[in-house]
Amino acid sequence: MIKPLFNNVVLKKQKEQNETSSGIILSQKPKDEAYAVVVAVGDGVSVDGKTTVIPVKVNDKVLYKKYSGTEIKQEGEDYIILSCEEILAIVE
Amino acid sequence: MIKPLFNNVVLKKQKEQNETSSGIILSQKPKDEAYAVVVAVGDGVSVDGKTTVIPVKVNDKVLYKKYSGTEIKQEGEDYIILSCEEILAIVE
Amino acid sequence: MIKPLFNNVVLKKQKEQNETSSGIILSQKPKDEAYAVVVAVGDGVSVDGKTTVIPVKVNDKVLYKKYSGTEIKQEGEDYIILSCEEILAIVE
Amino acid sequence: MIKPLFNNVVLKKQKEQNETSSGIILSQKPKDEAYAVVVAVGDGVSVDGKTTVIPVKVNDKVLYKKYSGTEIKQEGEDYIILSCEEILAIVE
Amino acid sequence: MIKPLFNNVVLKKQKEQNETSSGIILSQKPKDEAYAVVVAVGDGVSVDGKTTVIPVKVNDKVLYKKYSGTEIKQEGEDYIILSCEEILAIVE
Amino acid sequence: MIKPLFNNVVLKKQKEQNETSSGIILSQKPKDEAYAVVVAVGDGVSVDGKTTVIPVKVNDKVLYKKYSGTEIKQEGEDYIILSCEEILAIVE
Amino acid sequence: MIKPLFNNVVLKKQKEQNETSSGIILSQKPKDEAYAVVVAVGDGVSVDGKTTVIPVKVNDKVLYKKYSGTEIKQEGEDYIILSCEEILAIVE
Repeated sequence: MIKPLFNNVVLKKQKEQNETSSGIILSQKPKDEAYAVVVAVGDGVSVDGKTTVIPVKVNDKVLYKKYSGTEIKQEGEDYIILSCEEILAIVE
Repeated sequence: MIKPLFNNVVLKKQKEQNETSSGIILSQKPKDEAYAVVVAVGDGVSVDGKTTVIPVKVNDKVLYKKYSGTEIKQEGEDYIILSCEEILAIVE
Repeated sequence: MIKPLFNNVVLKKQKEQNETSSGIILSQKPKDEAYAVVVAVGDGVSVDGKTTVIPVKVNDKVLYKKYSGTEIKQEGEDYIILSCEEILAIVE
Repeated sequence: MIKPLFNNVVLKKQKEQNETSSGIILSQKPKDEAYAVVVAVGDGVSVDGKTTVIPVKVNDKVLYKKYSGTEIKQEGEDYIILSCEEILAIVE
Repeated sequence: MIKPLFNNVVLKKQKEQNETSSGIILSQKPKDEAYAVVVAVGDGVSVDGKTTVIPVKVNDKVLYKKYSGTEIKQEGEDYIILSCEEILAIVE
Repeated sequence: MIKPLFNNVVLKKQKEQNETSSGIILSQKPKDEAYAVVVAVGDGVSVDGKTTVIPVKVNDKVLYKKYSGTEIKQEGEDYIILSCEEILAIVE
Repeated sequence: MIKPLFNNVVLKKQKEQNETSSGIILSQKPKDEAYAVVVAVGDGVSVDGKTTVIPVKVNDKVLYKKYSGTEIKQEGEDYIILSCEEILAIVE
């Protein structure tokens, strides 16, 4: 199990999926964004006793800036660890 | 449906539209700006319990800095997700 | 009508005008500045409940850093949208 | 013994280990992350009397951004000294 | 008349003058500084109700970082508008 | 005698020493760190009446980021002046 | 007379002097530092009513980062104006 630190979030990449449940077709060119599902969320960053709230939760479908974050592999699945600031939107 | 995070705003791009309802003709060269309509607005960024106010609302016609933001496609329409700071003005 | 956001200001460019009412001749080489009239002013940026004051008002003649801002066209006139920080001086 | 300063953490690199106890197989290409064990933790950075909490402890297995930090060698083992901000996640 | 904004200051450049009233000979190679007289001073920048004090006044002879600021011309004289931070010293 | 300012620390470089008293062998490739002894410590930087504490003292053996700081020579010995932030760890 | 502004300090460069009164021989390769004497000190920068203290005084012998600051010439002597942050140490 992967427990992200700070504002980091773990995303599970979708394989070649170009259409979401709500019918969003992700643009092909330029493909600046990617589509994934949140599988783990950090505890935020605490500054002066205040903790930043991370606005995504496990199972949210999200769009994130492609090429951001760090890739890891677990049992054949691709995961991305990135800062929540690099998540653009929740897709519902 | 796309729910932008933080200060992000979702804009619907206008297809080859060069004139606004109020007769603004967008410059062709250099084309540094683009014309779009706001379709979704984030909740702002909360710092020390204060939340930045995003000064645009759904259906506002806006000028934004071209080449900023991230493009996505939904049912054949082009959308842009960008930070509200990259919106220059509301066109009325 | 164009309503600038944040610290942005809309300027109306002067066509080939090289002399101001007070006899200022703008330098030709290097032409690092440009001469314009303020036509719209944003509401400033609000930080911690304090709003930055924008020190120009509509009809002020100003010098601004050339190549800054974004050009738009309205009914044949050239306008610039830029941050008020890029305005150098008021010419009276 | 190595006592890291500020937010620095000392990690002991794993030799050619590609699988963790929980079955995580680290991606081979691109290998942007590395796997290590925390062996020493700094005292954090004190700002205005508040000290940043370092969210890892000795013996935590962690993923960190590869190419970050500084390598040292102790009795044949490889160690990395890096800022805790460069640690992405704890692997359990 | 030119009224500088924020921390900007208007300087009147001296023509080919290489010696000041107090006998300072400005270095020729590398000529990283320039010599001028203050002709107008901005109102400073107000942050949280506090205004930065601009430490030069009209008629001060100053050394400033060459290549900084923006040149304008008025009745054949060369002027520079620059931030007071780019003024290095007052020459008395 | 050299009295460092602000957060600067003066280190005395060890000549070709690759093993510390506690048996640490410094890595040869890539040699991103260097080994030295603290000989002088600045008074820290005072911000708003608070002074940053410099976490090393004279005679501490330290690892610092190679290529950081400025080299000086005193009676044939090499010294480095660098900011304490560039010191990675104390070696005991 | 040259009166430096803000945190600036005026240094008088020593001509080809490679040894200080206390026997410091400045390294020749790489020569990243230079040796000079303080001849004038600015009033510091005032932030929120607090003024940064400049930790050097007239006649201090100092080491500063070479290539920093701006050179001027007065009656055949070379002077440097630089920010006190670029002074590394006082040599006694």
